[in-house]
Amino acid sequence: MKTFKKITIIGVGLIGGSFAKGLKKAGLVDEVMGFGQNPDNLKTAIELGVIDSFSLDMEEAVTDSDLIFLAVPLGAMQSSLELMKPFLAENTIITDGGSAKSSVILSAQDVFGQLPVNFVPGHPIAGKEKSGVTAADEELYIDHRVILTPTPNTSQQAVKTVQELWQTLGAKVEIMTAQQHDEIFAATSHLPHLLAFSLVDMLNEHEELGDVFQYTAGGFRDFTRIASSDAVMWRDIAIYNSEAIVKWLKNYGLAIEELAGLVESKDADALYTLFSEAKKARDKHIVNKTN
Amino acid sequence: MKTFKKITIIGVGLIGGSFAKGLKKAGLVDEVMGFGQNPDNLKTAIELGVIDSFSLDMEEAVTDSDLIFLAVPLGAMQSSLELMKPFLAENTIITDGGSAKSSVILSAQDVFGQLPVNFVPGHPIAGKEKSGVTAADEELYIDHRVILTPTPNTSQQAVKTVQELWQTLGAKVEIMTAQQHDEIFAATSHLPHLLAFSLVDMLNEHEELGDVFQYTAGGFRDFTRIASSDAVMWRDIAIYNSEAIVKWLKNYGLAIEELAGLVESKDADALYTLFSEAKKARDKHIVNKTN
Repeated sequence: MKTFKKITIIGVGLIGGSFAKGLKKAGLVDEVMGFGQNPDNLKTAIELGVIDSFSLDMEEAVTDSDLIFLAVPLGAMQSSLELMKPFLAENTIITDGGSAKSSVILSAQDVFGQLPVNFVPGHPIAGKEKSGVTAADEELYIDHRVILTPTPNTSQQAVKTVQELWQTLGAKVEIMTAQQHDEIFAATSHLPHLLAFSLVDMLNEHEELGDVFQYTAGGFRDFTRIASSDAVMWRDIAIYNSEAIVKWLKNYGLAIEELAGLVESKDADALYTLFSEAKKARDKHIVNKTN
Repeated sequence: MKTFKKITIIGVGLIGGSFAKGLKKAGLVDEVMGFGQNPDNLKTAIELGVIDSFSLDMEEAVTDSDLIFLAVPLGAMQSSLELMKPFLAENTIITDGGSAKSSVILSAQDVFGQLPVNFVPGHPIAGKEKSGVTAADEELYIDHRVILTPTPNTSQQAVKTVQELWQTLGAKVEIMTAQQHDEIFAATSHLPHLLAFSLVDMLNEHEELGDVFQYTAGGFRDFTRIASSDAVMWRDIAIYNSEAIVKWLKNYGLAIEELAGLVESKDADALYTLFSEAKKARDKHIVNKTN
């Protein structure tokens, strides 16, 4: 594929940093420039070979950039777009890594009036146990999915460019609408995160149980691992994918109400069917997945 | 501690087999005899050095036994007690490994009319990813908790004997009431298992989402690991600890209803507080646990 003179990473943490590091390793870019608010973080990024240069000034960061990757928290998407707007060239491609897509598109609509032809919303599905630029890894995206959710205004050419970049990093790119994306990830990612936070919180609050955590075993540790995720990131996701998340929380509430009914009436057959169907589905779909 | 002439294991799977293997290794028993319905399984247990001998006949299995360990599913507790009742000596200690305790005590009450002095209900908290006698491991219980829930009729001497046996296997023994036990494990173990089954089942049923499992990542895999647990065992637990589980399912239903309200109203502060308190509690209590 074609090479780039300059690519800009807005927010050089795990996601932005891994993207930058991979592109540098692939030798497709003359200069990867980082933008952020914390000069120490950006200096570390240079020392680690994640970026070539950095700027604390948005004008310098995005001027003459071929492609901008927005890897900031969802809550900072709109202000970042606002800040870069005056300095964007017509052919600069903008893509992002936000975990909710409709909200980013709405932000772009707000900022630009109409959705830019070169705006390609995206979401790399990659592990986030560790965070920050020190965890940046050029192999992070290998065999991981990246979902692109082009708008009706997005040009095919811009989609193709972003797709090829991700493929260079080893990712499997899939294209769907923002609405499909938000619905699927509300159900498979946002919902379980909120459920895990909620369980730990409930046990923590019910003081009559005493220190119940001492009695937990491996199953509980696995179930609640995602409750050790970053609280700011998940607050933002909850807010920026609110509609789909509320829908699935309510669906789930109905499901466990039904389950409570089966347990209360000791309906052995229905409980067995539910548990064994769930086990079958998980064993079929999940067990052999490697990422 | 004193040695035993004969210990009987009713149900030689992971739990019963690991107990047997550990006792044999410790050299405290002249003969460990297994009882079960499947001669092939019991022959395998002998080949693996888990038990010394076996019988398919309950009279032979329990006659002259110093201690009987009931390691059958909760649904088979009462019938097993019924079957052994005619052949029990007055000083034979009976203990068990069931994940719910009030129901086992009720079964014993039903079978014996009054609760035997030598009956010591118990629950070893040990991992169960693998099951069956081939997974039996004399080190399974090392540093794991075993909860004993003696009844008002249980003699101190019987409790002491069972406690020492478990300690010989490396377990940390704790004593509480059956009600406390059932409440704590409904909240920390039974509830998360049912929640995981329920989530997988819901996603599997909502066909409008398509094959959503392909989009799941590591967080989902961890969260739902316990939904690959044995369906019969969990059906039994749901039924035999029904009351406490229903209570916690309902508490949890209220918690996620409240959470849905916060997400719907995009209450950033309350969401952040909930997520960060949960993260703090988990990081404090769970992360450094090794079992």
